[in-house]
Amino acid sequence: MPNTSLAIVAAASAAAGASVTALLLSRSRQREPFPAPTPTSTLKEPPSLPAAPVPVPVPVPVAVSATPAPTTTLLPPVDPSGILRYGFPGPIADTLSTPSFLAAFNRATRNPHWVAEHFTAQSLLLNNASRRNSVFHEDLTVPPMFRAKLADYARSGYDRGHQMPAADAKWSQEAMDSTFVLSNMCPQVGEGFNRDYWAHFEDFCRELVKKYPSVRVVTGPLYLPKRDDKDGKWRVSYEVIGNPPNVAVPTHFFKIIFAEEAAESPIGKVALGAFVLPNAEIPNQKSLGDFEVPIEAVERASGLLFGEKLPAERRKQLCREVKCEIVVREFDRSRQQSGRVGQNSKVAPQIAPAGVKW
Amino acid sequence: MPNTSLAIVAAASAAAGASVTALLLSRSRQREPFPAPTPTSTLKEPPSLPAAPVPVPVPVPVAVSATPAPTTTLLPPVDPSGILRYGFPGPIADTLSTPSFLAAFNRATRNPHWVAEHFTAQSLLLNNASRRNSVFHEDLTVPPMFRAKLADYARSGYDRGHQMPAADAKWSQEAMDSTFVLSNMCPQVGEGFNRDYWAHFEDFCRELVKKYPSVRVVTGPLYLPKRDDKDGKWRVSYEVIGNPPNVAVPTHFFKIIFAEEAAESPIGKVALGAFVLPNAEIPNQKSLGDFEVPIEAVERASGLLFGEKLPAERRKQLCREVKCEIVVREFDRSRQQSGRVGQNSKVAPQIAPAGVKW
Repeated sequence: MPNTSLAIVAAASAAAGASVTALLLSRSRQREPFPAPTPTSTLKEPPSLPAAPVPVPVPVPVAVSATPAPTTTLLPPVDPSGILRYGFPGPIADTLSTPSFLAAFNRATRNPHWVAEHFTAQSLLLNNASRRNSVFHEDLTVPPMFRAKLADYARSGYDRGHQMPAADAKWSQEAMDSTFVLSNMCPQVGEGFNRDYWAHFEDFCRELVKKYPSVRVVTGPLYLPKRDDKDGKWRVSYEVIGNPPNVAVPTHFFKIIFAEEAAESPIGKVALGAFVLPNAEIPNQKSLGDFEVPIEAVERASGLLFGEKLPAERRKQLCREVKCEIVVREFDRSRQQSGRVGQNSKVAPQIAPAGVKW
Repeated sequence: MPNTSLAIVAAASAAAGASVTALLLSRSRQREPFPAPTPTSTLKEPPSLPAAPVPVPVPVPVAVSATPAPTTTLLPPVDPSGILRYGFPGPIADTLSTPSFLAAFNRATRNPHWVAEHFTAQSLLLNNASRRNSVFHEDLTVPPMFRAKLADYARSGYDRGHQMPAADAKWSQEAMDSTFVLSNMCPQVGEGFNRDYWAHFEDFCRELVKKYPSVRVVTGPLYLPKRDDKDGKWRVSYEVIGNPPNVAVPTHFFKIIFAEEAAESPIGKVALGAFVLPNAEIPNQKSLGDFEVPIEAVERASGLLFGEKLPAERRKQLCREVKCEIVVREFDRSRQQSGRVGQNSKVAPQIAPAGVKW
């Protein structure tokens, strides 16, 4: 899909279960906000937490007058920020830094906001780990109330879908183990997605090291609205698993790819690609290019920002540099059937020995 | 509803449109996490933003060995946190501090996470402002891409529902004006909710100053799952308004009330009450007590924390101290019909001259 088209992103066209969804882009570029009055508010840094208990500012008594007084000269009779004496309500995006990825966790959905990984031809060639030695585990750094639990996924019908793939961390067992933390997971449709198209997509990302000395991928969930045919309204609708229901099942997943032409250079070019795939069965015939979207579409949908500090002159468009297609190799099918269905034994796709398409 | 009951919170019972929803509480107190392996990850403070461009750490070449080596002694061949050279993806919860409230904004829903206000008998008695002088306005401190727009609400069928009510900021026109920023709004059902039951609830909060010298209220939206009768699955489902659709319509709203017995004391008791109401028509006969929930239920549902630093010995239960009922006065009906339907002329409920029920 050309980026010049304003995007109704038909993540849609994937065969079963996926339906037309709109990313939050389209007409808003033309329509800037109405003239608004000068804001009376100011943007502040998130307040730091005062040590408790803190002496409370005493509200200043203000004279009550029958006629409105010039109140700007009066001290406010209230102290709204005093709520902080009881603790900052949040949100807190627990940041997780492991040997293999950096991530921010969403306490409301019990899924990550995003997971950032890095790999190179060298790191992928190392083969010091096996996923058979790794076990899925809960993230003890997240408070229990907000943590995804192993039990939440049990009998949910969904895979514990790695955001950063285990296969990208074969350079050490410790690194691979760290990818099995539930903060790196989202509930993903297994058959036809996590074990198939999504896995081929992960493979596509790894293949990029043949062209680029350094590749960074940021992966995460989306909860996109869909137009209801009955009443024409747009609704976000997603399942929540667990007991009590508390882990959200994303409707879509994104990957933002930063393929660095010169890893160690602060001025090297970076080939960027953004993709949004539905959390649904996708036929292997489907072109990866059909899922390409402008980065801004993912930003609008997620509330996040990607590459804010990457100037325009350093940017290239990934799908103009490489052919954005997945490669399905014949032997994948048998490997998947033997390995990926068992949740702990998901076979790591390897770098394709042949059949690279660019 | 007694707090001792494990909570399926029937925000439900509200007459029309509201249906049985479960807050994220229930069985999880009994079921603590399975034993998990020692985490290999560590919790970090959110990373600060490096000045760009930053020299990129050069990945350290690692020897490839046929047999697995003790990799723990090797330097990692990758640098996942290097993604930060392109900017921190977020999420950023824009914090808004105005004369009348403190709030955190959610860039993904275009609604606040929460809005905290403070009032006293004195501040409510002041009458230096009129809502007729205030205009709804967009929050220019939020990046345009993530800001709720006036146009998003137009013809949506929903009221621009104040989270901190304008009527609590009559002590100055500037303070009242600040409550009209869209960051203090969520789409609310008008008839039967924002203009009716919810307004009476706001009135209830103000009445508390007759008993407590200082009252703090934290208000915000929720997006709660609901059990689908057809397949028994739990789903979060909410409308998204605007063009493109980008402002979420919450399914519920919460208020956490901190009624302070001794405002200026760091050891005074605080009467706490948490309420969750459906964003739907609610009959006036409905008891406010039916919407009371344990604070933890709101915390689980929102990912936020309320009163983390308020020790148990300072806590009291609000609905044991006062009667948790709304008061509907006869003259409300005519005022609402004349005033609250027009979006800018919503008549501010006043402190009830009589009929206080505790």
